[in-house]
Amino acid sequence: MDVYSYLEMVREKRPLVHHLTNWVTIYDCAQVVKSFGASPVMAHAPEEAADMAGMAAALVLNIGTLTADFIESMKLAALAANRRGIPVVLDACGAGATPFRDEKCFELLDAARISIIKGNGSEIARIAGRDVRTRGVDATDVGGDLPEIAAGLARERKCTVVITGREDIVADAATAYTVRNGTEMMAHVVGTGCMATSVIGTFVGASPHELAAASAAGLSCFEIAAELAVKRSDGPATFKQNLFDCIFQLTRDQVSSMQRIAQ
Amino acid sequence: MDVYSYLEMVREKRPLVHHLTNWVTIYDCAQVVKSFGASPVMAHAPEEAADMAGMAAALVLNIGTLTADFIESMKLAALAANRRGIPVVLDACGAGATPFRDEKCFELLDAARISIIKGNGSEIARIAGRDVRTRGVDATDVGGDLPEIAAGLARERKCTVVITGREDIVADAATAYTVRNGTEMMAHVVGTGCMATSVIGTFVGASPHELAAASAAGLSCFEIAAELAVKRSDGPATFKQNLFDCIFQLTRDQVSSMQRIAQ
Amino acid sequence: MDVYSYLEMVREKRPLVHHLTNWVTIYDCAQVVKSFGASPVMAHAPEEAADMAGMAAALVLNIGTLTADFIESMKLAALAANRRGIPVVLDACGAGATPFRDEKCFELLDAARISIIKGNGSEIARIAGRDVRTRGVDATDVGGDLPEIAAGLARERKCTVVITGREDIVADAATAYTVRNGTEMMAHVVGTGCMATSVIGTFVGASPHELAAASAAGLSCFEIAAELAVKRSDGPATFKQNLFDCIFQLTRDQVSSMQRIAQ
Repeated sequence: MDVYSYLEMVREKRPLVHHLTNWVTIYDCAQVVKSFGASPVMAHAPEEAADMAGMAAALVLNIGTLTADFIESMKLAALAANRRGIPVVLDACGAGATPFRDEKCFELLDAARISIIKGNGSEIARIAGRDVRTRGVDATDVGGDLPEIAAGLARERKCTVVITGREDIVADAATAYTVRNGTEMMAHVVGTGCMATSVIGTFVGASPHELAAASAAGLSCFEIAAELAVKRSDGPATFKQNLFDCIFQLTRDQVSSMQRIAQ
Repeated sequence: MDVYSYLEMVREKRPLVHHLTNWVTIYDCAQVVKSFGASPVMAHAPEEAADMAGMAAALVLNIGTLTADFIESMKLAALAANRRGIPVVLDACGAGATPFRDEKCFELLDAARISIIKGNGSEIARIAGRDVRTRGVDATDVGGDLPEIAAGLARERKCTVVITGREDIVADAATAYTVRNGTEMMAHVVGTGCMATSVIGTFVGASPHELAAASAAGLSCFEIAAELAVKRSDGPATFKQNLFDCIFQLTRDQVSSMQRIAQ
Repeated sequence: MDVYSYLEMVREKRPLVHHLTNWVTIYDCAQVVKSFGASPVMAHAPEEAADMAGMAAALVLNIGTLTADFIESMKLAALAANRRGIPVVLDACGAGATPFRDEKCFELLDAARISIIKGNGSEIARIAGRDVRTRGVDATDVGGDLPEIAAGLARERKCTVVITGREDIVADAATAYTVRNGTEMMAHVVGTGCMATSVIGTFVGASPHELAAASAAGLSCFEIAAELAVKRSDGPATFKQNLFDCIFQLTRDQVSSMQRIAQ
């Protein structure tokens, strides 16, 4: 896969990526989209959620700090996105932590067509019906069959499934990618998981007919920048700053020489 | 204009700047006020919005992530500000993107006396009645007559109008300033527009009888700091950090030698 | 007191710290918990606030951007925390600024058992019944008897009371600690007060049977990191970044040689 070609599409098309996301990492979600050269917008009022999705190239839903009302706005936005045929990415943030989160995830999945479901191992395992528990928003160990869980959920829900972790898995009904970029430091920064979802939204916004490939390419670019950033960082906060800067400056040479994707 | 004298007023008076703003850039709005030596407070509950405005030196309203309820709190705060005669600054963030935003902007403008309307080119053009569309929260091209649009809206609404962009325009019924400080890097950072509005709130909070001059001076100071910050930055994130630091340390020499304001 | 031993407990137990906090500093509250090696989670929907508190090691309540609904969720979370016997820390952010804040603080204190009340001088003085006014969220001078105010409130409410400032006071019915670490630069960064509360939540989450000692130790560690961070900083923003990094890397030698706690 030529990962850089997907980044080029982002920089050329500058897709507008509409978010309904959580209040913890909302800034970083916006800034990561902007650092890649695209355009973020956050708008959750029920009166305008559909209109804003109606001018976007992709929709990102993240349930990190969900409320019942917020989910209703997400449905309106997702249905508008479906009508226009733009990709909808759901971050199942904290699925498996409380019954409320699980229930609302399933409600969203049933109410609209979700193109990509993304989470960590225990979040996705929970959405796939496993009896696991997520520790707040941190993954718990669910055993070694994550690729099977991803592929099974992709078939069941007719969508693309992304599991992030030491290795990222991107699976749809037909194929599966493994992304092996990244650094351990990402786990020490709040919001790298949310940012990864916004990156996926950005890349599928620019390449809407290749959901799995664009998702994998986006994750690879994001994590290559992380590998570059950690080398000049003293801890999680300087790392996060350098991550944005490295994304902003990412070159063809860096991406081509560092990409680690297997199909 | 002696721009530095307005900064001195901010540092001496340390105005309390009450915000009802969006959830994306709320931290940066607070930190930019604090970096200038003033005191930010964010409070949006309808039960206290008026009380908090009642102890502030200026009120900043930003509709970035508006909801209908939030607008009601803004009205309460704005009316309390009007009763006390303190300046009210409205950031028409995303006006022109959805009908809901336009409608709520006009509702605010009709419900209370707004001292300063601020936005990018397409946001202000929309408030001035032009048939333009904003791309999410990013400006679209509205042609070359921005100074006229600003002056016309200032006369119509009997207020000061600020349009930020490559050049900033500050217009009231009597006069107009053009601020030519700043750097292209500001466009790559989420929130520089919102921060500019908080800076205006800070400067008019300290110089409430010179709305246009204080707004122009505040923008100049903010953008001089940006020019200083970009020189030691590797990308948008280190730039934003350095921007706050440069604001905090801004000297009379820097401001006097770098200010680029025309009347 | 061996401050470092409390930090070791945090790093070993990695407590899950549930927050219902404000929208201004929510990211920094999460990141400070994570930088200490623990696990933050933010969840405020009434349908899940109790469930999330039910899997946490400590609960942090911060009323910075309170609404009436939000306080109801706080009560549900606090009662769940009480049932499980985990510590509940309340940041009385802005108490003394508006009647609504005072009223809601007292409502929380009456509805559930609050283990630790934390604020700046005027916030705590107001909760202790003094006729003082807080300037937004910034402390005003309440005279020199803060240790007595803290001890009195601790006896009255049968809890631990923390007053942060140039010197921090930690008092319960039996004893009092004074923490003399920190740097003036902390006052120039939005959110250091909120972060201090999250740090207290983290440390009492790991040492729930020593509320006062663990609170004092947490503050000392946080402020030692601040002393280290300020030395390599150019202003408030690089300082905040370095603060997280220094927390992440804090060593036994640094803590032992720099701790300044008096009992």
